[in-house]
Amino acid sequence: MVQIPNPSSAPEPSAPRSAPTSADVARLAGVSRATVSYVLNNAGAVRISEPTRRRVHDAARELGYVPHAAARSLRAGHSRTVLMPAPSFPAGPLYSGFLSELQWALGRLDYTVVQYGSVGLHGDEAARAWAELRPVAVLVPGRGPGPRGVEILKRSGARAVVTLGPEAVKGAHALLMDHAVVGHRAVRHLVERGRRRIGVVMPAEDGLEFFSAPRLAGARDAVRGTDATVTELPLAHEERAAARLADRWDSLGLDAVFAYNDEYAMLLMRALQDAGVRVPGDTALIGADDLMLGRLLRPRLSTVHLELPSGRDLAALVDRAVHDPGAAPERREVLGATVVHRESS
Amino acid sequence: MVQIPNPSSAPEPSAPRSAPTSADVARLAGVSRATVSYVLNNAGAVRISEPTRRRVHDAARELGYVPHAAARSLRAGHSRTVLMPAPSFPAGPLYSGFLSELQWALGRLDYTVVQYGSVGLHGDEAARAWAELRPVAVLVPGRGPGPRGVEILKRSGARAVVTLGPEAVKGAHALLMDHAVVGHRAVRHLVERGRRRIGVVMPAEDGLEFFSAPRLAGARDAVRGTDATVTELPLAHEERAAARLADRWDSLGLDAVFAYNDEYAMLLMRALQDAGVRVPGDTALIGADDLMLGRLLRPRLSTVHLELPSGRDLAALVDRAVHDPGAAPERREVLGATVVHRESS
Repeated sequence: MVQIPNPSSAPEPSAPRSAPTSADVARLAGVSRATVSYVLNNAGAVRISEPTRRRVHDAARELGYVPHAAARSLRAGHSRTVLMPAPSFPAGPLYSGFLSELQWALGRLDYTVVQYGSVGLHGDEAARAWAELRPVAVLVPGRGPGPRGVEILKRSGARAVVTLGPEAVKGAHALLMDHAVVGHRAVRHLVERGRRRIGVVMPAEDGLEFFSAPRLAGARDAVRGTDATVTELPLAHEERAAARLADRWDSLGLDAVFAYNDEYAMLLMRALQDAGVRVPGDTALIGADDLMLGRLLRPRLSTVHLELPSGRDLAALVDRAVHDPGAAPERREVLGATVVHRESS
Repeated sequence: MVQIPNPSSAPEPSAPRSAPTSADVARLAGVSRATVSYVLNNAGAVRISEPTRRRVHDAARELGYVPHAAARSLRAGHSRTVLMPAPSFPAGPLYSGFLSELQWALGRLDYTVVQYGSVGLHGDEAARAWAELRPVAVLVPGRGPGPRGVEILKRSGARAVVTLGPEAVKGAHALLMDHAVVGHRAVRHLVERGRRRIGVVMPAEDGLEFFSAPRLAGARDAVRGTDATVTELPLAHEERAAARLADRWDSLGLDAVFAYNDEYAMLLMRALQDAGVRVPGDTALIGADDLMLGRLLRPRLSTVHLELPSGRDLAALVDRAVHDPGAAPERREVLGATVVHRESS
């Protein structure tokens, strides 16, 4: 469908039916349009008496008038919108909880958080699509925009671009989440338990290589200087794929597996048990994410517990950055990881 | 923080630093501002030669100019934004998959989908917050706005309000998802398998009563006219709560359970097995959602497979409604449910 722009129309939005305007509110309340704008946009810098304030609010309610966020941001030159592109990876429960807390914390600071489903957009193209919404800040989980994308966002008025991922991008604040630490902790634990031939599950699903590649790098790092070895185990999250892997288990000669996360660990544990491989007797197994299902498995699943930054801290960082857009980009390593040793390893 | 509106400023957005404007693009391309607007906003109604089009795009790219979605929607009188308030219930994998498909399908129809985290907003207040973004359509999962909220949204320019939930709201299109069918199918299956004293798990977690209450109603409906009975089993999704329930299992005298969904079923199956209750010998068990984990349990979990409407169909409905805002609200029953019989029942 096409939009037919009408450059000659007034800035006041026209809507189908008779949408009430701020002029209607001003008329009913017996005040100027500027006063309506001051009151409804919470402009604290202008003193307006409480009775006037109340009259404006009553009139707006009676008419069903709602201020227009876009018009307000055009006047103010910026918005209170924090844009979060939807992550390109499947969000697990841990990450979903983190996002909810972050949205809540930004809401408390009076930002409006919108999530943007940027399906099929990449790199600068995605940055341009985000810039069209003129957000005051952009929070990018996963693979961030390149330096040119950051520049596009900043030139269009974003005061802060914050990436949450493995790499820092020029011009953007970076909350570095290096998943190498997860693989390192898991495999060091297996080595300390006396295991030497260690498999590392690499999910076949798209979008996860972003986490699995650094986890593998951390695993390799953990065996450096020991006589232990690391073997990659590509695995799709499907029963049949797990059964096929379990069927050739003996030929692999492994005595331990870091299964990428708890969901792959559950899948693999079931397949190994069905194939007669004893866990942890023949093969020790450890997952990651510390999901509840791990405690429900028998043997209970060992796992790596991840610590994400608190949503409140991250919201405070965004707010600081918005107030001081010229400050040097912050870089912080924020991912913590500790092993939870249960029965499977 | 406060915003200081500046009603005297020009409609062209001012941004920190020297943000390029459409006037800069027009100057560099040697065309009028109206032409820049026609080209960058894809106004198909106006014929513009291909070389001019290319000149405008090149100039915009060179200057890093991005059109302002808000300014465009102010001019056009409406936006291409479809607003989806974030659901108030924890979204499971089934629902997340449905949302992704929907966002993809709306994107293909050239809508921009934004998800809005309306934490702590309820009823009309939420509707007003959504209206500030002037969406062309609003898609509300779960408990929708009331009739007054729908009116607020429509008066502010929304051409379609669509609810996805158990009840229709006056003025809005309704995709009715009556979860009674889920409980009905599950419990009818248990009755057909010869079970008579049937427990129905009621999650203690907030936000789920929305699904659990109709599922219970469906369960009660399924035993009507039989000698079977239904007993409510409140349960939090925690190991200890499940263990306590399993400890008093014998005193309940149940021979079957519909466990709300597969995740509660996994929790309860583990607790029952640990307490020496045989599944399905002593107690038959069925979940819902058809998650993969059900196939990984031993015995394999029986479940109710849900069929949600396709994201593509729903996107088409939104598009139709936007084109014909005066049409009578559509009401469609969209939730399908079939039993997948495995080993636990």
